[in-house]
Amino acid sequence: MREITVDNLADIAVGAAVVGTGGGGNPYIGTLMAQRVMERRGAVNLLDPDELRDDDLIVPSAMMGAPTVMVEKIPSGNEIVTAFKILQAHLGRPITATMSIEAGGLNSTTPFTVAAELGIPVVDADGMGRAFPELQMVTPTLFGVAATPMAIADEKGNSAIITTIDNRWTETFARTVTIDMGCSAMIALYAMSGKEVKDACVPRTISRVEGIGRAIREAHAAHRDPVEAVRAATDGHVVWRGKVADVARRTETGFARGEAVIAGSGHYDGRSLTVAFQNEFLIARDGDETLVTTPDLITILDAETGEPITTEELRYGFRVVVLGLPCDPRWRTPEGLKLVGPAYFGYDVPFVPIEQRFGAPGTAA
Amino acid sequence: MREITVDNLADIAVGAAVVGTGGGGNPYIGTLMAQRVMERRGAVNLLDPDELRDDDLIVPSAMMGAPTVMVEKIPSGNEIVTAFKILQAHLGRPITATMSIEAGGLNSTTPFTVAAELGIPVVDADGMGRAFPELQMVTPTLFGVAATPMAIADEKGNSAIITTIDNRWTETFARTVTIDMGCSAMIALYAMSGKEVKDACVPRTISRVEGIGRAIREAHAAHRDPVEAVRAATDGHVVWRGKVADVARRTETGFARGEAVIAGSGHYDGRSLTVAFQNEFLIARDGDETLVTTPDLITILDAETGEPITTEELRYGFRVVVLGLPCDPRWRTPEGLKLVGPAYFGYDVPFVPIEQRFGAPGTAA
Repeated sequence: MREITVDNLADIAVGAAVVGTGGGGNPYIGTLMAQRVMERRGAVNLLDPDELRDDDLIVPSAMMGAPTVMVEKIPSGNEIVTAFKILQAHLGRPITATMSIEAGGLNSTTPFTVAAELGIPVVDADGMGRAFPELQMVTPTLFGVAATPMAIADEKGNSAIITTIDNRWTETFARTVTIDMGCSAMIALYAMSGKEVKDACVPRTISRVEGIGRAIREAHAAHRDPVEAVRAATDGHVVWRGKVADVARRTETGFARGEAVIAGSGHYDGRSLTVAFQNEFLIARDGDETLVTTPDLITILDAETGEPITTEELRYGFRVVVLGLPCDPRWRTPEGLKLVGPAYFGYDVPFVPIEQRFGAPGTAA
Repeated sequence: MREITVDNLADIAVGAAVVGTGGGGNPYIGTLMAQRVMERRGAVNLLDPDELRDDDLIVPSAMMGAPTVMVEKIPSGNEIVTAFKILQAHLGRPITATMSIEAGGLNSTTPFTVAAELGIPVVDADGMGRAFPELQMVTPTLFGVAATPMAIADEKGNSAIITTIDNRWTETFARTVTIDMGCSAMIALYAMSGKEVKDACVPRTISRVEGIGRAIREAHAAHRDPVEAVRAATDGHVVWRGKVADVARRTETGFARGEAVIAGSGHYDGRSLTVAFQNEFLIARDGDETLVTTPDLITILDAETGEPITTEELRYGFRVVVLGLPCDPRWRTPEGLKLVGPAYFGYDVPFVPIEQRFGAPGTAA
């Protein structure tokens, strides 16, 4: 167990935005929300999964919706506490800790808002090791953990407790309710025992992303290349360098969907990379050649600052470096690929692990 | 208090379909569901509202969705009991009785399924004195009664408890969840005290519609005109006679919407009546002239049998009589008209009470 203070939040949020692969929400909004509560209520304890008792009750807390909308409609922080409290009342016993369901700019720090407000710890883990666009896309699903009962709440005071027959149905109902709530909502779901968190979640995600964020910050201070710092901290591969030439973006069925085209420069001159996204970057292709696909991570960094760029921030003219990072090994199993592989998102390409395409980390151009 | 047996159900359902104004669901499905449970569990007590204690807890139970879908996807009867039970668990105290939220072919008898299964009485009342397409359109809304917490359940085993800031939001969330559930769902909502039922609901609706159903049945037995029997039992006015020339129908945003054109015959020969509907018939027009509008009731009867025809059954070639019936006086107040008047549904015409257009009941052609 260690203390997370307001000073740690920025590293966590920035590092999580790197593994958030363009989604998982805006890091500044998540930090702002948690900061506001922690300044008033104090630091939050971060528990290692090994410190959990088997019969602890852990409930992840998160924001759901289209990131494009969240930057316009900033949450107050009260609605996530409401969602958490109504689920606790429904479960009928005290929730002992919260955690991130995904490692994303926003959802890495969202649990700290809840934890600070309610005086409970955050578990150093998450349910993806990255961000994914749909609720059922978590490692607990692979272990048979039910997403429901889940709570969902908006800033107006509307809320619901949803109970479904499987986690795909949870996504269906929660998505349409989120759309009715104005395309963003706060959720509490995947109530788990301590044992389930230890068995079914990705351990030490918060520490990992904090390390990535710290690497960027320290590279700046030492005038080293921040992009290389991220690559080294993530076992990543540089797969592209260039300038954003076009971004087609639409908010539909509650998601930010679209494609970015990145004109190559240097080694990549004269070619174009197309990166498709549904909240998160899903597939990166150079013409007919697929370079990286889900569940491996595609991250777009500002070439100058090394800061991750989320799908909703991506603009024409940005000079960027695209990294490919290996995903948690559980996503590469047949069950994992069925849940989040390229075929699920409609891409008729096989999944090839990033290190098979690019060799050992750091060897590519 | 009196007993309602399986033998009473058909009169109730048919009579309710008359005041259901084309909506409120198919009377045979509602009867079938209630019959199945009552044959197994016995008769149900019908309580007069005056018999309620002020602190009784009454929760109406109903089916929600597009009637066009309900006839294809017949409910088992278990899902409404599920909705009722999860709301009871959420409220944390026993529900003492159920009732109809609307008088419609299906929703007049839906509460008998719940009542028989759980051994509780049905209150002789409803929340509309007719059927309307949206959840907030009940007299309890005019008295400040909240629709939520409400429960919603489907036949697959999915369910939700929804809590909203007003009854219009309840409609929004419940409608999209219903669409996700396959365009039909079972609901329990508008939990009320005995005092609220007495103050805010339309009293003795079940007895009234049972009387209408009985009048049709007795007219058949005595070889009297069943259409005139309905008119007399409802203080109604004959506003049209003719043959259905066209029905345009679509299921959209969870509703059955459309228009029926009825070519006039006899007194109405050479003219056409257009009746627009959103689950229920909303406005009947002869060219530019408006004959009847919501909140007064528009009922289409089979000219031969006097049986009410629901919007989803309406077909080319049916010979029909259209009746206009006066609504509960509370719908004619400024607050009532704001909630369910022609302007709410997008018709830019004033509400004129049926008896102002057609004189005292029974005097028209």
